[in-house]
Amino acid sequence: MNIRTASTTPITQAMTADALEARLFEIGAERYHNLHPFHDLLHSGQLNRGQVQAWALNRYCYQAAIPMKDASLMGRIDDRELRREWMHRITDHDGYDDDEGGIMRWLILTDGLGLDRDYVVSQDGALPAVRLAVDAYIRYVREKPLLQAIASSLTELFAPKIHRDRIAGMLKNYDFIDDRLMTYGTTRLNQAPVDADFALQYVRRHALRADQQQDVINALLFKLNVLWIQLDALYLAYVNPGLIAPGAFIPEE
Amino acid sequence: MNIRTASTTPITQAMTADALEARLFEIGAERYHNLHPFHDLLHSGQLNRGQVQAWALNRYCYQAAIPMKDASLMGRIDDRELRREWMHRITDHDGYDDDEGGIMRWLILTDGLGLDRDYVVSQDGALPAVRLAVDAYIRYVREKPLLQAIASSLTELFAPKIHRDRIAGMLKNYDFIDDRLMTYGTTRLNQAPVDADFALQYVRRHALRADQQQDVINALLFKLNVLWIQLDALYLAYVNPGLIAPGAFIPEE
Repeated sequence: MNIRTASTTPITQAMTADALEARLFEIGAERYHNLHPFHDLLHSGQLNRGQVQAWALNRYCYQAAIPMKDASLMGRIDDRELRREWMHRITDHDGYDDDEGGIMRWLILTDGLGLDRDYVVSQDGALPAVRLAVDAYIRYVREKPLLQAIASSLTELFAPKIHRDRIAGMLKNYDFIDDRLMTYGTTRLNQAPVDADFALQYVRRHALRADQQQDVINALLFKLNVLWIQLDALYLAYVNPGLIAPGAFIPEE
Repeated sequence: MNIRTASTTPITQAMTADALEARLFEIGAERYHNLHPFHDLLHSGQLNRGQVQAWALNRYCYQAAIPMKDASLMGRIDDRELRREWMHRITDHDGYDDDEGGIMRWLILTDGLGLDRDYVVSQDGALPAVRLAVDAYIRYVREKPLLQAIASSLTELFAPKIHRDRIAGMLKNYDFIDDRLMTYGTTRLNQAPVDADFALQYVRRHALRADQQQDVINALLFKLNVLWIQLDALYLAYVNPGLIAPGAFIPEE
């Protein structure tokens, strides 16, 4: 038996840009990590503080890698206009001048959860699978052709909903979460749609042949896996069956 | 016979930071491209407009590559503070918001020299050796350890003098050069010392062992060669003996 879905149906003939876009959204609806049971638990208040700490400190690895990913990508773009467009992705996370940026906003969350900042930044307590997935993402963007490297950012198309669900759910369901701790997410609500729309228009313009469209889809699938794997690792370690790898963070409660 | 100079004396024992710094300046005094006869001709008004065009359009390749070099470097830095420091090197050249940046200021020069902007940007008329040297520089920064990648920017230590000499010399000696065309250089007079001082302090702090100090020196020598090779190529093609590679820019006069 072999059930083909939007994610797995090969592209044998070039599609229109609209059809490609529709396919990308179908794939997101099939595989974006908002569907992962860990997010249900997180957003609906079913985790304890230690499990939320584990999530925040592991997710830090991903946050910390984003500017490296985007700078690596920019370093391969020989079109000045495209680099100028890509630029703010770095400053969004690293900050610039007075803006402390998204990484620092994530550390406000981990601080607020009672985690030691140096420990979080060291990434020493992160799960091996999370670190490997993040490394693989940076490497992908460094090594794949530009179209795929850019297409791997298309998961941002699906990000605003997860941020809205997370902010509302976590504020409502956890007494140790307040507005200030959610600043990362509220800022991303404005930033992600701009980035996502640019990447979408880019692939609409540049993925015209069937093989290029397949590359775009493969890039999106790869990135969806990078996100999914992190939650699988968190679930395995901190929800069920509770298999925490040696050296990884052990919650107190 | 084997004459050792500051550039070629191996470092067998760790030096103090001050001694390392002194050595770097000695090497600059031996090998920086201000010593190249092409620069003498350029600054003293001994080139015709076609030769100055050839210089400006070839040098564009280097200018255009700088943000790719710096973004590639940033993409390998996992220290957010260091990335934030490195950041402005990209915006200095690509611009940000209203600032058009150094690449565009260089195009003001090539425009003013009567070169077609698309032709300059295409780099189609550049000399093969220039393009190869620039590619090698980007690759070096992508592949070498961070200390060497950062140390390869140390040529900025010697840049302000060449910019001053160039601006004064070219304004005085060429009737087709005016202040507006020299904006790239006048802006760099303020930018380069900041960058150079940071890189210098970085290598003073991080190159403590003899092998690390040798790495720093090798990185500086490599970069000095990248600069020197470009002028050798220009001299060969446009001064003497006038061997212009197939496809390269042919001046009208």
